[in-house]
Amino acid sequence: MHARSNLPTGTPVVGVLGAGQLARMMAESASALGVQFRVFAQSESDSAALVCADTTVGELTDAAAVFKFAQTVDVITLDHELVPAATLEFLTQSGIKVYPTAAAIKFAADKSAMREKLKMLGAPMPNWVTAQNLNQANQFAQEIGYPLIAKSPTGGYDGRGVWVIADIAELNTLTFPVLLEQKVKFERELAVLIVRSPHNQAVVYPVVETVQQDGICTQVLAPAPNLAESRAIEAQQLALQIAAELDVIGVLAVELFDTGSGPLLVNELAMRPHNSGHWTQDGASTSQFENHLRAVLDLPLGSPTMTAPVTVMGNILGGIHPDLHRGLLHCLARDSELKVHLYGKTVKPNRKVGHLNLTGSDLADLQNRISHAVDFLAGRIDE
Amino acid sequence: MHARSNLPTGTPVVGVLGAGQLARMMAESASALGVQFRVFAQSESDSAALVCADTTVGELTDAAAVFKFAQTVDVITLDHELVPAATLEFLTQSGIKVYPTAAAIKFAADKSAMREKLKMLGAPMPNWVTAQNLNQANQFAQEIGYPLIAKSPTGGYDGRGVWVIADIAELNTLTFPVLLEQKVKFERELAVLIVRSPHNQAVVYPVVETVQQDGICTQVLAPAPNLAESRAIEAQQLALQIAAELDVIGVLAVELFDTGSGPLLVNELAMRPHNSGHWTQDGASTSQFENHLRAVLDLPLGSPTMTAPVTVMGNILGGIHPDLHRGLLHCLARDSELKVHLYGKTVKPNRKVGHLNLTGSDLADLQNRISHAVDFLAGRIDE
Repeated sequence: MHARSNLPTGTPVVGVLGAGQLARMMAESASALGVQFRVFAQSESDSAALVCADTTVGELTDAAAVFKFAQTVDVITLDHELVPAATLEFLTQSGIKVYPTAAAIKFAADKSAMREKLKMLGAPMPNWVTAQNLNQANQFAQEIGYPLIAKSPTGGYDGRGVWVIADIAELNTLTFPVLLEQKVKFERELAVLIVRSPHNQAVVYPVVETVQQDGICTQVLAPAPNLAESRAIEAQQLALQIAAELDVIGVLAVELFDTGSGPLLVNELAMRPHNSGHWTQDGASTSQFENHLRAVLDLPLGSPTMTAPVTVMGNILGGIHPDLHRGLLHCLARDSELKVHLYGKTVKPNRKVGHLNLTGSDLADLQNRISHAVDFLAGRIDE
Repeated sequence: MHARSNLPTGTPVVGVLGAGQLARMMAESASALGVQFRVFAQSESDSAALVCADTTVGELTDAAAVFKFAQTVDVITLDHELVPAATLEFLTQSGIKVYPTAAAIKFAADKSAMREKLKMLGAPMPNWVTAQNLNQANQFAQEIGYPLIAKSPTGGYDGRGVWVIADIAELNTLTFPVLLEQKVKFERELAVLIVRSPHNQAVVYPVVETVQQDGICTQVLAPAPNLAESRAIEAQQLALQIAAELDVIGVLAVELFDTGSGPLLVNELAMRPHNSGHWTQDGASTSQFENHLRAVLDLPLGSPTMTAPVTVMGNILGGIHPDLHRGLLHCLARDSELKVHLYGKTVKPNRKVGHLNLTGSDLADLQNRISHAVDFLAGRIDE
């Protein structure tokens, strides 16, 4: 851990709880900004711990250890929403600056609390209920009809903790309380990413389309193709409203269902740099990672303007090849414009181990090139 | 130091001798590429040591310590050319892969050797001599006439180790041997940056103009304005030829005098990411730092294409304000497109402590905005 006395005068110090790929990519931006970056990791081999000079290894449930770490930084931010609420509250009560605040993060970590809050704001959503028992669940099912979506109120991500419920037999298998939602008929999924600072400055990135397969995002198209300007503005205004009402500091990602003729419906919220914003690293004037740091440090935010007409991001999901670098030899030779972002993670089936970005003007061409590269790296194709 | 067994299968490991800002910016690219990055630093507070997870502190003259470090990596590269030749030769003889090679780096570290070699290649240069004594120096002065440029054959950088010699009295003050060069009348200075891999793949970036003040580069204009295409090709071919003949692996920067009507004359060579290529971080498809890593790892090189019509880079030179971050509050609020790259270095007068990039299409506008920001950060203006 570098002592403050060894840093240039005025160097801001940011600490991150969790050391996954989001912290790793924040670290790249922090280096450029001259911000000293510290991570509280679970293990030395965590994604961000592999690259960060100032890593503390510990458990996020150990509030005393987290507090000791937090005392060395100017502000604490998060790599994920699974940081125990008790730890965040302890930090806040101890006078540590935490962004997003414990009060705001609740609405990303607890999906029932999120639905309740969005209802108060009048945000359009699928029909939902937090069922405390089978009786309430059954009543909701009779009103709405099957299939339903069941969500674990806390702890889920990337499709984990989310189930499609086809009938009463499946309803019977659930553990309560559970969040039940109408399975919305939608044409596609959109996401809008906003960054907000304590000064109340906010920047909104262009609305993107997130292409999903089996509940996992495979590609992000920026901007969302064929989206009417009025729809884009509707999405951006909704995100601005939610960010302001929830007093979010840093990145807020709002995942939306595009129902075509009906309104845009809020699916999920995330309060950290988000997969739907990874395209900004190579396709926007300021990346979401840089703007997240600028926000939590209350620096003026950077321009979210696109630097090319189209950017396509493709997630690299673990396949049959344990060695991604070998595959890169082929992919980089084939496509000299491919921008690679690997996370230093061991390959496991369907695990997000990296992503690729391509910028240009021909969406179909960019999508094909991205698909080729991610399929090759996973071993689904071999040439 | 992370053990190889804790890294994902196939992870390449790069070690850098020296831990200045070039190593720091390589580290940012290494993180994205999933490359494990290690630095051999002089101190824990070196620019790259502040951000790198795997830092070893030691002296570059301590060949045994450097060898121990080198055994943990796949390839060694350099942050600067001042690594002792004896250390590089020891590594090479011990079977360590070093790129650029000790044989090539000699022509960047020793300016007399560089001149000798370029003469053999027939590269256009100012008239020069390596004077072993005052007698030889005086003879050269009589042939060429004053003023002359005197250069310490080794160890100089950023205008240090370079003197203008006005008359015989000043000639008398020199320590021999010394490299003497004709003081060329030139219209401007250009630079061309090439990256070459062991596979013999090479990419050349657009020729840039380097704006100098008191022997220090203050701005870089990419591409060099009003440069005839034939001149640009002349410069790029010269760089390609030099890189191939010197068998350079990694970045080679060739600094040139543009004499207007006469040929382009080679001023200096550098074999590492170079200040004249910092614009590529925000203005090119692949930055020089990423391509340097790709070259030394023998990965296919990335496209050097510009992502905007014009990029201007401005060096932040230390001024009266010790706290750069305070100044950034103003600069970032004034210009949301400014890309900041700070090095984590304590401010000292005229020390390069960071740089700024701006991309766009209006050169004069970009130059004005860059000038404003660097002047503000140094304290030469206060609004």
